Amino acid sequence: MSKAENRAESRPETLKPRLPRGFIDRRAGEIAAQHRMLETIRQSFELYGFEALETPFVEYTESLGKFLPDLDRPNAGVFSFQDDDEAWLSLRYDLTAPLARFVAEHFDSLPKPYRSFRAGYVFRNEKPGPGRFRQFMQFDADIVGAPTVAADAEVCMLMADTLNRLGLAGRFVVKVNNRKVLDGVMEAAGLAGADKAAQRLTVLRAIDKLDRLGVDGVRALLGPGRKDESGDFTKGAGLDEAAAERILAYVGLQADPGEGADRVAFWERFFEGWHAAVGASETGREGIAELHAMMRLCGAAGYGHDVIRADPSVVRGLEYYTGPVYEAELTFPVTNEDGQTVRFGSVAGGGRYDGLVGRFRSEPVPATGFSIGVSRLFSALQLTKSPLLAGAEAPGPVVVLVLDRENMADYQRLVTLLRADGIKAELYLGTAGMKAQMKYADRRKAPVAVIQGSNERLAGEVQIKDLIEGARAAEGIASNAEWKAARPAQFSCPELDMVAQVKAVLARHFSHAGE
Amino acid sequence: MSKAENRAESRPETLKPRLPRGFIDRRAGEIAAQHRMLETIRQSFELYGFEALETPFVEYTESLGKFLPDLDRPNAGVFSFQDDDEAWLSLRYDLTAPLARFVAEHFDSLPKPYRSFRAGYVFRNEKPGPGRFRQFMQFDADIVGAPTVAADAEVCMLMADTLNRLGLAGRFVVKVNNRKVLDGVMEAAGLAGADKAAQRLTVLRAIDKLDRLGVDGVRALLGPGRKDESGDFTKGAGLDEAAAERILAYVGLQADPGEGADRVAFWERFFEGWHAAVGASETGREGIAELHAMMRLCGAAGYGHDVIRADPSVVRGLEYYTGPVYEAELTFPVTNEDGQTVRFGSVAGGGRYDGLVGRFRSEPVPATGFSIGVSRLFSALQLTKSPLLAGAEAPGPVVVLVLDRENMADYQRLVTLLRADGIKAELYLGTAGMKAQMKYADRRKAPVAVIQGSNERLAGEVQIKDLIEGARAAEGIASNAEWKAARPAQFSCPELDMVAQVKAVLARHFSHAGE
Repeated sequence: MSKAENRAESRPETLKPRLPRGFIDRRAGEIAAQHRMLETIRQSFELYGFEALETPFVEYTESLGKFLPDLDRPNAGVFSFQDDDEAWLSLRYDLTAPLARFVAEHFDSLPKPYRSFRAGYVFRNEKPGPGRFRQFMQFDADIVGAPTVAADAEVCMLMADTLNRLGLAGRFVVKVNNRKVLDGVMEAAGLAGADKAAQRLTVLRAIDKLDRLGVDGVRALLGPGRKDESGDFTKGAGLDEAAAERILAYVGLQADPGEGADRVAFWERFFEGWHAAVGASETGREGIAELHAMMRLCGAAGYGHDVIRADPSVVRGLEYYTGPVYEAELTFPVTNEDGQTVRFGSVAGGGRYDGLVGRFRSEPVPATGFSIGVSRLFSALQLTKSPLLAGAEAPGPVVVLVLDRENMADYQRLVTLLRADGIKAELYLGTAGMKAQMKYADRRKAPVAVIQGSNERLAGEVQIKDLIEGARAAEGIASNAEWKAARPAQFSCPELDMVAQVKAVLARHFSHAGE
Repeated sequence: MSKAENRAESRPETLKPRLPRGFIDRRAGEIAAQHRMLETIRQSFELYGFEALETPFVEYTESLGKFLPDLDRPNAGVFSFQDDDEAWLSLRYDLTAPLARFVAEHFDSLPKPYRSFRAGYVFRNEKPGPGRFRQFMQFDADIVGAPTVAADAEVCMLMADTLNRLGLAGRFVVKVNNRKVLDGVMEAAGLAGADKAAQRLTVLRAIDKLDRLGVDGVRALLGPGRKDESGDFTKGAGLDEAAAERILAYVGLQADPGEGADRVAFWERFFEGWHAAVGASETGREGIAELHAMMRLCGAAGYGHDVIRADPSVVRGLEYYTGPVYEAELTFPVTNEDGQTVRFGSVAGGGRYDGLVGRFRSEPVPATGFSIGVSRLFSALQLTKSPLLAGAEAPGPVVVLVLDRENMADYQRLVTLLRADGIKAELYLGTAGMKAQMKYADRRKAPVAVIQGSNERLAGEVQIKDLIEGARAAEGIASNAEWKAARPAQFSCPELDMVAQVKAVLARHFSHAGE
């Protein structure tokens, strides 16, 4: 008697099978569909000269740093544990911090600029909610060692091309802003200086919530603070009214010329508004010049303002951005949890982070890149009924039924013959009777069942049951008697002919026989 | 000024970029090669009717249970941390325990038998060593709900077919044993009864080390214990000499008939030896009958004893096995760390674990399956110079050089034209001069560089540099002047002709232009 059996006997209570909240299992259909989406993204990134990199799930906590948006809980957000030598380790919470560590570690041996892409799960020790998980996938592309906005422009074009390739052309916009402009606006509003860094971050995070909270919500967060519906109070940036209104005026600058507008005149007025917002700030002017240069490069490559454009409301929540920031937003309408019609929203975002690799080196190393939220993008493709995901589920296996168990070796041989010809097939391995076996074949989405009773065996024959045709017949779709006779749902054939006959049935239903 | 810059200035010390021991990064070439191997395995599993499943990396610690082989450190081996509600969570240490949890959780909605495969990283908080990592990949296939050895036979055939498909035909053997036989041998040696369960497990783990420690090492571990070269002492099972020799006699039964032997006579004698070893034990006899049945099924499907065979030395270290256990061993010679020539050894293994799903349910649920050690198998394919891995590295991108930076938009346009035709291409985004840019193209394995100086721009032309031809010319391989004239390593062409000319160069070097 085995140990496991002993244990089961001595323990009357059984464990409840369940997952910690915020973690999920994924089944075959979803895995196959998402795989196709990821392959499409990979092809897009490779076309731009990016190469694959994989870093481990575990890093030293200090290597990752604390760059998560949720300042109020400085020790939360990350799953951490201590190593044998007391050093703290963490599960990665994004794919950017590990890239910075990797580049710094292998700096001299890497070609620079270094273009890399990475796909993988990241972990956040946060409160999960609908569509919010503690393990989720990101797909990132970054260029390290390229100091000019030509790199940021390339990354924005890559975002656009990737969404086009996924079939979302005309249904998204890549919005671009620049942290230097934001810094300039804050400087003009009296928030310059190292001592006001925390306050500036609070302002940025307030602006980042514009979509969700609206102008009044952001105004409250720029001032004393905001109480939400549940009564929870979030402390604000503490700006006076004039400073808050100055920032809100900038954020509120209309970024969309709309149909039929005079575009040249619109964008001239638009950038005039930006210049007014940054006032005399050198940093702010530098940021606007960078934005102009990016727009020029994108334009020259054929990306119009309808695809990539400047937008003052884009901020990005992460602390480490130092220049251009960008976000890909899907523009088609969806219904939110409260039943309101809203835009689908952001599926990817990123920016320039010239200081992150520099944490490991004496000098800063320029870097820019973006991250796709794989689950959100996948939901979007499902909502748009993307042909990329259609038919993702392959047909099930041919199932060889077992009528008399003492002849298992014979049934096994039939399965082996099918597989040897590349036909996905399996032997029924349970103990149930004929009826339950047919039900099993049905649940496995089997296109064909192969049946051999003792009479057939003696005659050297097998029964081939076309389950797809059978299902159609049962639904009355194929009621024409003549047609039914030509394509019988069940027929017998010599055992030697089994593979050819099964192939013929599969070819009738699928373009690639049985694969 | 951004926060990140502030921080860099105010901190004189820099972090050391490094990974915790036992964790590694992987680069593009290895990722692509391993991807090909994993796809081959997946195709093999799907041909057998197995479907994909993915479970998360984190589970409740109690769901995983403590089934790791290292009994001496009951709390080690697993990375664990506490959730907000104090519940213990762990990173999965294999893909079997999460499958058991998944099946128990969704028992009624799954088709049974349920065939699933899973590929993914698992984590062991153990001392890393050469080729031993704390994060490594497994690729598993399991059948849950199939009580008879027909399922175990299928799984062994799947192991064999998978290794064949990977190009290892004739270089491996699948060895099969049965825990019931081992229990019978131990019963015959006086180790029956629930109170001796821990002792039996120690015996099994001693046998499992036969490959590494030899007969004398195992003898010591069956008796009082063993001191290794470093002086560390491992406590033994404490058997008396007669019991230990009885077990060693069974383990030592020759399992390989060798070339040209009378196979029928050999296997008759072989099973006689097994019967003698289990004596009067009912469990032991049941195990031998199961082994016989499995061999018969494999034989009927065309798998000879040279591919799948019974072997008394196979044990498997995990506690939860209850019936057949099996292991795929690569038989070609390699040189070990001590310079000795040994067999490559095990790359996959598994067995029947009828009690594991039952931890979550009131009744046991039969299950059997195996796990491929992805890294070890990958090493084996590298050693055998598998064509599956050859040419895994795709050619690099076409690099468009930047000669005058004020014309970035023009260079960007050239890159966009190449990409629009499906040619992998990139703009040089660094700040270095011409010579360094050529060196960069070389490090990126670029097949072609596109160059446009101000003279070419005025003339509406570009220079196309064939870097592969150029490298050959530099090596003096193509010294024939006429041949060089026909295939110039650098030439100019009208800008409008650039895409066609680049394509022609790529077609000359690769079967699929630029992809």
